[in-house]
Amino acid sequence: TSSGVFLLQMGWGDLGAFGEPSKETPNLDQMAAEGMLFLDFYTASPLCSPSRAALLTGRLPVRNGFYTTNGHARNAYTPQDIVGGIPDSELLLPELLKKAGYTNKIIGKWHLGHRPQFHPLRHGFDEWFGSPNCHFGPYDSTERPNIPVYRDWEMVGRYYEDFKIDLKTGEANLTQLYLQEALDFISKQQASQQPFFLYWAIDATHAPVYASKQFLGTSQRGLYGDAVREIDDSVGKILKHLQQLGISENTFVFFTSDNGAALISAPRQGGSNGPFLCGKQTTFEGGMREPAIAWWPGHIPAGGVSHQLGSVMDLFSTSLSLAGLQPPSDRQIDGIDLLPVILQGKLIDRPIFYYRGNELMALRAGLYKAHYWTWSNSWEEHSKGIDFCPGQSVAGVTTHTQEEHTHLPLLFHLGRDPGEKYPISFASEEYQRALEHISGLVQQHKATLVPGQPQLNVCDQAVMNWSPPGCEKLGKCLKAPESDPKKCSWPH
Amino acid sequence: TSSGVFLLQMGWGDLGAFGEPSKETPNLDQMAAEGMLFLDFYTASPLCSPSRAALLTGRLPVRNGFYTTNGHARNAYTPQDIVGGIPDSELLLPELLKKAGYTNKIIGKWHLGHRPQFHPLRHGFDEWFGSPNCHFGPYDSTERPNIPVYRDWEMVGRYYEDFKIDLKTGEANLTQLYLQEALDFISKQQASQQPFFLYWAIDATHAPVYASKQFLGTSQRGLYGDAVREIDDSVGKILKHLQQLGISENTFVFFTSDNGAALISAPRQGGSNGPFLCGKQTTFEGGMREPAIAWWPGHIPAGGVSHQLGSVMDLFSTSLSLAGLQPPSDRQIDGIDLLPVILQGKLIDRPIFYYRGNELMALRAGLYKAHYWTWSNSWEEHSKGIDFCPGQSVAGVTTHTQEEHTHLPLLFHLGRDPGEKYPISFASEEYQRALEHISGLVQQHKATLVPGQPQLNVCDQAVMNWSPPGCEKLGKCLKAPESDPKKCSWPH
Repeated sequence: TSSGVFLLQMGWGDLGAFGEPSKETPNLDQMAAEGMLFLDFYTASPLCSPSRAALLTGRLPVRNGFYTTNGHARNAYTPQDIVGGIPDSELLLPELLKKAGYTNKIIGKWHLGHRPQFHPLRHGFDEWFGSPNCHFGPYDSTERPNIPVYRDWEMVGRYYEDFKIDLKTGEANLTQLYLQEALDFISKQQASQQPFFLYWAIDATHAPVYASKQFLGTSQRGLYGDAVREIDDSVGKILKHLQQLGISENTFVFFTSDNGAALISAPRQGGSNGPFLCGKQTTFEGGMREPAIAWWPGHIPAGGVSHQLGSVMDLFSTSLSLAGLQPPSDRQIDGIDLLPVILQGKLIDRPIFYYRGNELMALRAGLYKAHYWTWSNSWEEHSKGIDFCPGQSVAGVTTHTQEEHTHLPLLFHLGRDPGEKYPISFASEEYQRALEHISGLVQQHKATLVPGQPQLNVCDQAVMNWSPPGCEKLGKCLKAPESDPKKCSWPH
Repeated sequence: TSSGVFLLQMGWGDLGAFGEPSKETPNLDQMAAEGMLFLDFYTASPLCSPSRAALLTGRLPVRNGFYTTNGHARNAYTPQDIVGGIPDSELLLPELLKKAGYTNKIIGKWHLGHRPQFHPLRHGFDEWFGSPNCHFGPYDSTERPNIPVYRDWEMVGRYYEDFKIDLKTGEANLTQLYLQEALDFISKQQASQQPFFLYWAIDATHAPVYASKQFLGTSQRGLYGDAVREIDDSVGKILKHLQQLGISENTFVFFTSDNGAALISAPRQGGSNGPFLCGKQTTFEGGMREPAIAWWPGHIPAGGVSHQLGSVMDLFSTSLSLAGLQPPSDRQIDGIDLLPVILQGKLIDRPIFYYRGNELMALRAGLYKAHYWTWSNSWEEHSKGIDFCPGQSVAGVTTHTQEEHTHLPLLFHLGRDPGEKYPISFASEEYQRALEHISGLVQQHKATLVPGQPQLNVCDQAVMNWSPPGCEKLGKCLKAPESDPKKCSWPH
């Protein structure tokens, strides 16, 4: 059975099936109607790189090294001056799937490090079309080079130079390129009768948001909605392609997101987290609860809904299970195999960990969530207009200083209070009962945790994408400055 | 064609189909899947009585008299010391439907006045089982009598005495009684082959929230969710009954709500307005945008979605149209006939008016909404812990003083900003263009408006439900105090 994972930066509330009022995602809604909707599905970090590392390793970022110790509880990722990346010691899903004869392709943003040793084709992927970092820019080639776009081992151009993004109009045809790549890859695999793993990690909904001309101005929601509509259309075309090739019943497909909607970019460039609190960068529900749909015609009963507490890390274990493989036994794996949930409707008891960098901020068990630390962002950043919770403010919860609650965690019941507005009284029996259970889980987790070497501590202008492999052929090699490694600055 | 209207106090975000994360409304979701979902549907007031008066008259409360002039922009309703009620001069939907041979029944809360002249059977209904006021209580029979429950002309008991509601556990079997009434009425009408109008206006989700024993503790959402589940189950049973009797294709059914979820009662007794701002009592989207589903098998295409700006007042005009009747031509009717929308997918250009008492607070045209006044509630009320926007605060928008913006209205684009968080810049071309259009609509509305006599100004302890008709037979007549009419106090 082949596997496909759509990983996008979209908020829980961006899909019609999840209550977006414009209801402009007919293909994703159809995917949900034909498959299974996960309502309690989480990413592993409120930021992109650590979530992606967790998805591909089945392990929490604090284990696989995708975190920082430069400051307490700071989100970190892989900008182009990052020195670190995915360690060789980590076993990635595509590396393991190779043993079962899979061909693995990544389309879109890799984000696990851009230096040669971190290249996706060194970590199990057979093919790549996309970029190592976010499509930020345009840059000037002096202070900062534009991000390269790779085909397999070599760059084939750079964003803004060879792959245009019009920041004024939001026009870019990248999603169409990425769609065509997916369709071609699937056709090729079907023709060769080889199982495949396709990781479609495109970034049209990440600021600077873009859409193709044919989608610009078509959404009620503005540019962000145009991008969502194009992604929705693309997902529909990929699923239809699988059906037309007659391989949909042999292909497990999962749609989800790497973090909550970036409310700092709203309303033009950011999405919606529905009824949840705050967004990307925070460990409130808006930062980490994700839209999620499993689709596998003939296997998953149509119209299913699951309240299984799920995680992007489960896609690691589930994809291995589909390939008849076991997860590695020499290390802690945080993902679980969701097949019993999906195929037999089981519910597996497991907690959800909400980390920000090196700190366990919160834990969810059942319908209860306990916050051990609360923080939105600092007063300093907030005073610059950076707001992760625009229009929302819950006293003592969306704090602008790092507040420790380890002795008396804030407890919420996410069933009757999905918006995390009403902490349960410390004096209540309910608090005592729920917290006793959760405290046990936290203790157990902390007692056995072996943190990985933090990969996101050091930044250096010299490691930026000055001269990626292949730059000579294109005449696009740039001169790197002297190496000057520094601690990266992670304000959030 | 018969008509059924389910009118409930539920928030936009309370249904699975509208994104409630627990997704516990399978029957309503199924109703939506078989019918048409309205995503931009509004009530006529952020409070119950005026909305109900508007639904049944097809006219804004400021026209039909369901408002107050005791204070500026105050919400008013019909507590049991209210002197006023629905004026005889108003023509109610059931009065008109009678001309086409309909039998009309109201089940549940009437709320258009409880003195004899306002009795629903004097205003077109043929049958009634329910109460004239909210099921507040229990009262002591001295300061305040418990609310009576009527069958047709006479009371058959009182809440808390003969119709139990356990405020501690939330247990009450009232929804089951109201369900059985509906099933029996439909059976009777089917047997007699008479067209009917059924107005099922039950109040289990209005604080104090209640549910039957079999539903208590079954929801992830606590007591409120239990009540929602029972209502969902009941709606499913009523629709199934229509199908089993073979009359579903001759019965137009509409589900909606009279105001947004009462966030002051959350989390135990209040619902969800999804991504919208604030709740009941306010003219933000959370106060007035409602869940809405039209169902009419064989006529409405399954799975339809409409962005028609709709109103509860449209149920008046639509029901008349279904009966082959014309709306009265001697008065302004604010409702429109939705049949072209529902059957042919048309979109009719019309504004939505957001009133609070005697003041037009805001107007929506297309995707733009202009606020002429902003107010959540007063600092005085807020300081008592009454919060209509818990956890939400948008500077200059969710104001605690009545802020006038008539010269420079706050403008929002509800497509990219459904949460009303980002006022559009006054200096922008978009602002100028949208506002020019909206100003014209406001001017036109104000120039032709003939306000009705305000019915909700005077309160008097003597008019409470001391001795409703039928009390003698039950030995339940109470002695009224001396009449002492006063201006009602409307703090919000």
